[in-house]
Amino acid sequence: MAETNPIRTTDDEARALARQLLAAARFAAIGVLDPDTGAPVVSRIALARAPDGAPLTLISRLSTHTGHLLADPRASLLVGEPGPTGDPLTHPRMTLTARARMIGPDDPERAALRATYLAQTPKAKLYIDFADFLFARFEVTAAALNGGFGKAYHLTPADLGL
Amino acid sequence: MAETNPIRTTDDEARALARQLLAAARFAAIGVLDPDTGAPVVSRIALARAPDGAPLTLISRLSTHTGHLLADPRASLLVGEPGPTGDPLTHPRMTLTARARMIGPDDPERAALRATYLAQTPKAKLYIDFADFLFARFEVTAAALNGGFGKAYHLTPADLGL
Repeated sequence: MAETNPIRTTDDEARALARQLLAAARFAAIGVLDPDTGAPVVSRIALARAPDGAPLTLISRLSTHTGHLLADPRASLLVGEPGPTGDPLTHPRMTLTARARMIGPDDPERAALRATYLAQTPKAKLYIDFADFLFARFEVTAAALNGGFGKAYHLTPADLGL
Repeated sequence: MAETNPIRTTDDEARALARQLLAAARFAAIGVLDPDTGAPVVSRIALARAPDGAPLTLISRLSTHTGHLLADPRASLLVGEPGPTGDPLTHPRMTLTARARMIGPDDPERAALRATYLAQTPKAKLYIDFADFLFARFEVTAAALNGGFGKAYHLTPADLGL
């Protein structure tokens, strides 16, 4: 709705807003591809940050998005939620273009991701060690920030500190 | 995250929750396809209902998702937002599989959609008649309801009253 404007030149204010949106996001809308049709499929995932700041989630092999990501790792993440009273047209949000990398039970990276994920998402202790759960780490390649009506920016991973 | 369960049989309680989520949504995360790469792209749109209940939005030709929908009408809509304090893993949400149909300035359907959209989204009067804005009406073909951990359902348009 609110992108009816030319793209602005990325500045420090835009970078700060983008980093804040990524740091604050507890969840995201994730877009993946249905491998049978190539159609987009959007669902909700919990979101945390890996030690290096990359978006990180914990997903079950039994969920639709996990199967789709295993077939094609291309993903789009929308962060920045207006909440029940915010104006969806002016509330800042950001779309991250990314590829998911799955980290399973035997991966040497898992211990560090498990610790950082639990620190950010304590309730996950109830299922974090279930056999069907995987970490998905998102390697961000680009971002589109919409800071509200008239404020659109294209950002690089470096702009986000990634 | 919360779909680590078999799909339940759709019942009246699931239908009522799904209809409530659709009726209450003021905005949605929309997933579309990048026509150059086939990759998913998620962004936010305002959401209203057409007179027959179909999801309806007003989008600008200058926005990325509009260009993508004009190239390929396949879309996925996620509704049901946990808000700043809700638990993203247990808050009900629903993914709609849909095709967008664009309604431009000269379309005979526009007058009725304009009236119903303004009644639901009064602030849109500021730009609803701008030359670059189109209505997009979503023809829903399927829905996946996640009523919280352990409560996943597949629904038809008829289940949603569409």
